[in-house]
Amino acid sequence: MSHASSPLKSLTVNRPTLLLDKNRAIRNIQRMQKKADRAGLRFRPHFKTHQSAAIGAWFRRLGCKSITVSSLDMAAYFADHGWKNITVAFTANLLEGKAMKSLGRKTQLNLLLDSAELARGLPPFLPAKTPVWIDVDVGYHRTGIPWDDFSKIITVARAVRSEAKLSLAGLLTHSGHTYQAKSPLEIRRIHKDSLLKLRAVKKRLQEEGIHPCEISIGDTPSCSAANSFAGADEIRPGNFIFYDLTMSTLGVCRDEDIAVAVACPVVAKYESWNQVVIYGGAVHLSKEFLLDERGRRVYGYPAFPGNASWGPAERKAPIVSLSQEHGLIEMNDSFLRQTKVGDLLAILPVHSCLTADLYRSYLALDGKKIERRQSNDRG
Amino acid sequence: MSHASSPLKSLTVNRPTLLLDKNRAIRNIQRMQKKADRAGLRFRPHFKTHQSAAIGAWFRRLGCKSITVSSLDMAAYFADHGWKNITVAFTANLLEGKAMKSLGRKTQLNLLLDSAELARGLPPFLPAKTPVWIDVDVGYHRTGIPWDDFSKIITVARAVRSEAKLSLAGLLTHSGHTYQAKSPLEIRRIHKDSLLKLRAVKKRLQEEGIHPCEISIGDTPSCSAANSFAGADEIRPGNFIFYDLTMSTLGVCRDEDIAVAVACPVVAKYESWNQVVIYGGAVHLSKEFLLDERGRRVYGYPAFPGNASWGPAERKAPIVSLSQEHGLIEMNDSFLRQTKVGDLLAILPVHSCLTADLYRSYLALDGKKIERRQSNDRG
Repeated sequence: MSHASSPLKSLTVNRPTLLLDKNRAIRNIQRMQKKADRAGLRFRPHFKTHQSAAIGAWFRRLGCKSITVSSLDMAAYFADHGWKNITVAFTANLLEGKAMKSLGRKTQLNLLLDSAELARGLPPFLPAKTPVWIDVDVGYHRTGIPWDDFSKIITVARAVRSEAKLSLAGLLTHSGHTYQAKSPLEIRRIHKDSLLKLRAVKKRLQEEGIHPCEISIGDTPSCSAANSFAGADEIRPGNFIFYDLTMSTLGVCRDEDIAVAVACPVVAKYESWNQVVIYGGAVHLSKEFLLDERGRRVYGYPAFPGNASWGPAERKAPIVSLSQEHGLIEMNDSFLRQTKVGDLLAILPVHSCLTADLYRSYLALDGKKIERRQSNDRG
Repeated sequence: MSHASSPLKSLTVNRPTLLLDKNRAIRNIQRMQKKADRAGLRFRPHFKTHQSAAIGAWFRRLGCKSITVSSLDMAAYFADHGWKNITVAFTANLLEGKAMKSLGRKTQLNLLLDSAELARGLPPFLPAKTPVWIDVDVGYHRTGIPWDDFSKIITVARAVRSEAKLSLAGLLTHSGHTYQAKSPLEIRRIHKDSLLKLRAVKKRLQEEGIHPCEISIGDTPSCSAANSFAGADEIRPGNFIFYDLTMSTLGVCRDEDIAVAVACPVVAKYESWNQVVIYGGAVHLSKEFLLDERGRRVYGYPAFPGNASWGPAERKAPIVSLSQEHGLIEMNDSFLRQTKVGDLLAILPVHSCLTADLYRSYLALDGKKIERRQSNDRG
């Protein structure tokens, strides 16, 4: 498709490149920040999605002061970039005690735990009094103490409060089961149910004299779809800054909110199979997939260059197969006619967190490079 | 499990780390090299799997002189490390003409194409006479001219021969459909069929006066399972250096041949769900999966520390779910009893190429670090 005026046309891209539409990302941040403000919630966005100090600064300019990360290395990176209050929303890993110690000297660390043993094991690695959150499971069944195991939660809360180096921040959950929901309505139902359970736990703790105790929630589907957050004190969504096809398919964002795409050159075209091959494979997109209405795996949809950005997801041209470096797009005759070898397609990612994690930088549509954290080998 | 003497126990690992069993890798190289020698084939291993100059040197010491890569950046890296004959087994991408030109000055480049337009488009970017392979599809349907479209293949071959800067190396295929086979027998059937088709094309070209024309094949399943390579001139397998669960499930290697694993700390244990949580998610393992006999997705199997390396894949303890940083392992009571928070598990990868691609280095079992190519942002 010829859009001579598209900003994509003026970028120098000759191989798979992670594009970032800054306007969309900032709009996504503003929308979520406003929602948190309106509901009186602390906004503690998860930075694992973008992992970029420069993008972090966009949040800071909008008033954000506290953040979430998923590893100590990520925490160290953002601490080095001036973030003074960081929650590591991943069960504290005592094997990394040394890193915890040096980090605790640089920033206000907040940690996550799920057992009394861990509460007793942490203090030697903490240079300062450290707020800890108790990981509570409300239905996702990944990590956390089952919400209705009151006696275990009380035991852990007491263990925390008996350690001079720890303070009890509250209850934290990740309702990741919203990703399996079929509609925003179902997401709101899960969200409501999660808060109901957490409030019940909080009440039970209060009866035991254990308070104050905050409630922290934070999956992008809930935070995007919900308007009521009764009982919550903070939200920690991450994916919303970029969104992706999973989110637009769930109905919690529109395709036009998706702020990253991978520019991929078309390298071959096979009319007889109605197929176009892009330079862009599993190492450029990740192997995350959606199932389409026929139950077929789809690894992304292309978008053509548009006037201000890339256009909408072309759902009639799915990426149906992905090997290490190749992606295969199935196209009808009309799309095939519009596409030629050497064209660039913007591939919308199925899961933007995983896709972005494969790159060291973003290319903004104005041609500027935005660095991501150079991970110290996956830390 | 306590194996006080296991080399894994003496490694300093506190977060997901890519382990390499050098003995196994070298054994895998030797076995394939011998097979190529015995069959009189040029051994042109695909280096996209390991992407390491140090590992490349192990091949060189065994007599290997020519290699395969999947991108120009990868070719540049290995050219800088002394490799003088490199095939880029990926449809030539004219958008990268400049990179092609500078690379062609450093090494003998061999390129891949599938159209007469490409044959005519390449010469301006070639500083020296360049052998090109015609990409032929024998059933995988990813890239390549359908093998029975003789007239197109002849047209492309003639276009190549009419360019002073190009020479026709021959016919190249990747029979990736062997990955979908159910047994080594079926793999050998596909392999035989591929060679039959390529020989038919070669004969047809010969009848048109187009020769010499070599035949290059190269998927790890075929090269591992087959003993006869009648008609082939070179093989380009890559995955075999590490193998993985996909290959041992296909029956073309044993679990004991798998030469990489990701060491992951156990961070939580939930007896009530028979579940252990590891620090090790999609960004550490990739989302490639196998289907087990119940049709369930499995993202890897753990192995316990063994005497000389890690032990066999524990198929009764599958990783059943993988989010960005977490892996969930389902365990029976007996495994649960053997496993505690803080333990390290060696996770055998489903697809070692994709897993290794997520790291910048390997940790050998003797504690030495082996660098991988620092990719220039996914090139």
